[in-house]
Amino acid sequence: MPLSGIKVVDLTRVLSGPFCTMLLADMGADVIKIEPPGRGDPTREQGAGRNGLSWYFAAFNRNKRSVTLDLRQEAGKAALARLLEDTDILAENFRPGVLATMGFDTDRLKAINPRLIVCSVSGFGSSGPYVERPAFDFVTQAMSGFMATSGAEEGPPMRAGPPISDLVAGLYAAFGTVSALHARTSTGVGQQVESSLLNGLTSMLAFLSAEYFATGQKPKRQGNNHPVLAPYGLFRSADGDDVAIAPSTPDIYQKLMRALDLADKMDDLRFVDNAARLENRTELHNIIGERITKKPAAYWIDYLNRSGVPCGPVLGLAEVFSDPQILAQEMVIDIQHPGRGDVRMTGFPVKLSGTPCSIRHPAPELGAHTDEVLRETGFNDDEISALRVAATIS
Amino acid sequence: MPLSGIKVVDLTRVLSGPFCTMLLADMGADVIKIEPPGRGDPTREQGAGRNGLSWYFAAFNRNKRSVTLDLRQEAGKAALARLLEDTDILAENFRPGVLATMGFDTDRLKAINPRLIVCSVSGFGSSGPYVERPAFDFVTQAMSGFMATSGAEEGPPMRAGPPISDLVAGLYAAFGTVSALHARTSTGVGQQVESSLLNGLTSMLAFLSAEYFATGQKPKRQGNNHPVLAPYGLFRSADGDDVAIAPSTPDIYQKLMRALDLADKMDDLRFVDNAARLENRTELHNIIGERITKKPAAYWIDYLNRSGVPCGPVLGLAEVFSDPQILAQEMVIDIQHPGRGDVRMTGFPVKLSGTPCSIRHPAPELGAHTDEVLRETGFNDDEISALRVAATIS
Repeated sequence: MPLSGIKVVDLTRVLSGPFCTMLLADMGADVIKIEPPGRGDPTREQGAGRNGLSWYFAAFNRNKRSVTLDLRQEAGKAALARLLEDTDILAENFRPGVLATMGFDTDRLKAINPRLIVCSVSGFGSSGPYVERPAFDFVTQAMSGFMATSGAEEGPPMRAGPPISDLVAGLYAAFGTVSALHARTSTGVGQQVESSLLNGLTSMLAFLSAEYFATGQKPKRQGNNHPVLAPYGLFRSADGDDVAIAPSTPDIYQKLMRALDLADKMDDLRFVDNAARLENRTELHNIIGERITKKPAAYWIDYLNRSGVPCGPVLGLAEVFSDPQILAQEMVIDIQHPGRGDVRMTGFPVKLSGTPCSIRHPAPELGAHTDEVLRETGFNDDEISALRVAATIS
Repeated sequence: MPLSGIKVVDLTRVLSGPFCTMLLADMGADVIKIEPPGRGDPTREQGAGRNGLSWYFAAFNRNKRSVTLDLRQEAGKAALARLLEDTDILAENFRPGVLATMGFDTDRLKAINPRLIVCSVSGFGSSGPYVERPAFDFVTQAMSGFMATSGAEEGPPMRAGPPISDLVAGLYAAFGTVSALHARTSTGVGQQVESSLLNGLTSMLAFLSAEYFATGQKPKRQGNNHPVLAPYGLFRSADGDDVAIAPSTPDIYQKLMRALDLADKMDDLRFVDNAARLENRTELHNIIGERITKKPAAYWIDYLNRSGVPCGPVLGLAEVFSDPQILAQEMVIDIQHPGRGDVRMTGFPVKLSGTPCSIRHPAPELGAHTDEVLRETGFNDDEISALRVAATIS
């Protein structure tokens, strides 16, 4: 696998950090999840599950091992330091400064292991006026411009349903970490890698930020309309289901109009070019919409796609996860959890032909690998017993 | 830089692919953007700009070189083959199968250069029933479950304003490509790396997909409410600006209520735990909302953050890009384009302490590096002249 032989000590919890280390684990890294004895990662107790296992936790912690370690105890910190001596990547998503307060500032980490890459995910980054602020996905969606540019024209700024800023930050962190691994092959030393919820989502405004910078004009919310393309949007079909239609170029617009038997409208001065179509969007959408109401959604989706027009249904999760394309792409997988039954989760979004991602083991029971990992690190049975007696490990 | 010495031949256009190769270029890779003679990448002509330069194009093509090459000509294909002999990564976002039709199927590419990593971004992946379909961000937002879970409870499914499926797919592709580079250090050979707009966004449903899999219940759209947490949302302040407030744990909920001088409500049976608060969300939001109307947004954002409650403003792009945190994180940068003036764009979302991302050169003029790159590839002056006479290059 791509990251076979790479050892990750993972102090992250909840979502952004565990998503980052899941991506590394799926690529073959040995991710050792350090959890406080007792309850472990809070997501172990969050969301629905079966047989006492949270499926949310199970999905984001597949392919990892779990070690309990009380990092408030000196013995726990000493064990962590020993573990880091032979580790490639330390991942954490504490608030900036917390790791240093625990005794692991940059100098100390370099002294322990100069080859160590330290991967940090935070809300706002490790410097600047908001560095001390607590963060949460919703707040960074609001502060990034994402919400201001999403939602109906006449409605409020609208967040994404999924916790997109957490996931984007985690993915950026994984990309940065593997890039730092590559850098290490020439420099021989590690470095700090940081991503943040705010920076990540702000970097994804694409043409919205480019247009703002070039013109100084703030984009308006446009609902499901496109700011600079028409026609584009949801159209109600004969069976009441919406069809998403998005002709991305003038050429594809013409294919759409011909497919809908509306070629005569192409000479209409109101629709003669994209600028005119934007100005007369409502009329054009009404004309197209009237056609779409004549047949069921499945008809249009098949017919328009064959005509070369990007179009598709709006799918709820039941439809998404039974869709033939999603199944063909193996985006739904079932993992056996001994004693907990099978757990269903989403598959691997990155496909590698030679060294593909795979499931090597399910999300770990709390502390299932404590002894195993400590032994690998050179702790003997007496040392492990002493840690257990002191409740440093469980 | 992390990817110094890595050569990328980039056949991508518009957004998902160019974003992927921009991320690689920002990390130091030598990205050679191959464009058709004449007009080049369509985004050169899209969106607002100054001095004849599209700022959208400029942002997504920084740090790259541009070579014109007509790949419909045999001489163009031969030049590409020669270029690939000494290339690490070939990036493309054609529809699946197009590269093979052009004469570059997997076997041929392996024969040309067994170390070559081929990075492909597509709408739906390279297999499955929708492989022939044209794709566009809006359609994959609709088909991924993202839209079904975003938007107001009583409103339609709602897309994200930014083209999030393109960007997520591009970022996954960059992560996969650097992972494949790492794999090559042990295997010695390249492989194919794929990401798709549909798979990428589908993998980002997080707890929404986990809950659906565990319970079989479809999530409802909830607008700016949270599916399983209350209180949470936008609250209107005295100056009319909204404040996004998101207490992520019971502990932080208590901090919020104390900060708002609402500690007496904590014993109210309607709000006694998260389940009760979800059930009585409207009443609780009204009580909190009434307090928030008493002072301006800036007061609450400062005071509540200091009280340990994640909260922030909803910022439009003018506010985002003048926000002191965004500026402190260098998320706004200006790049000199000789003859075109300074271009403003978003900065680097991944921060590396030892080998940071940097701007080495601005987005290239069309074909600015054609001769330079061909010479580096071993073409002599006569060969270059012949290609120019045949309009294979411009």
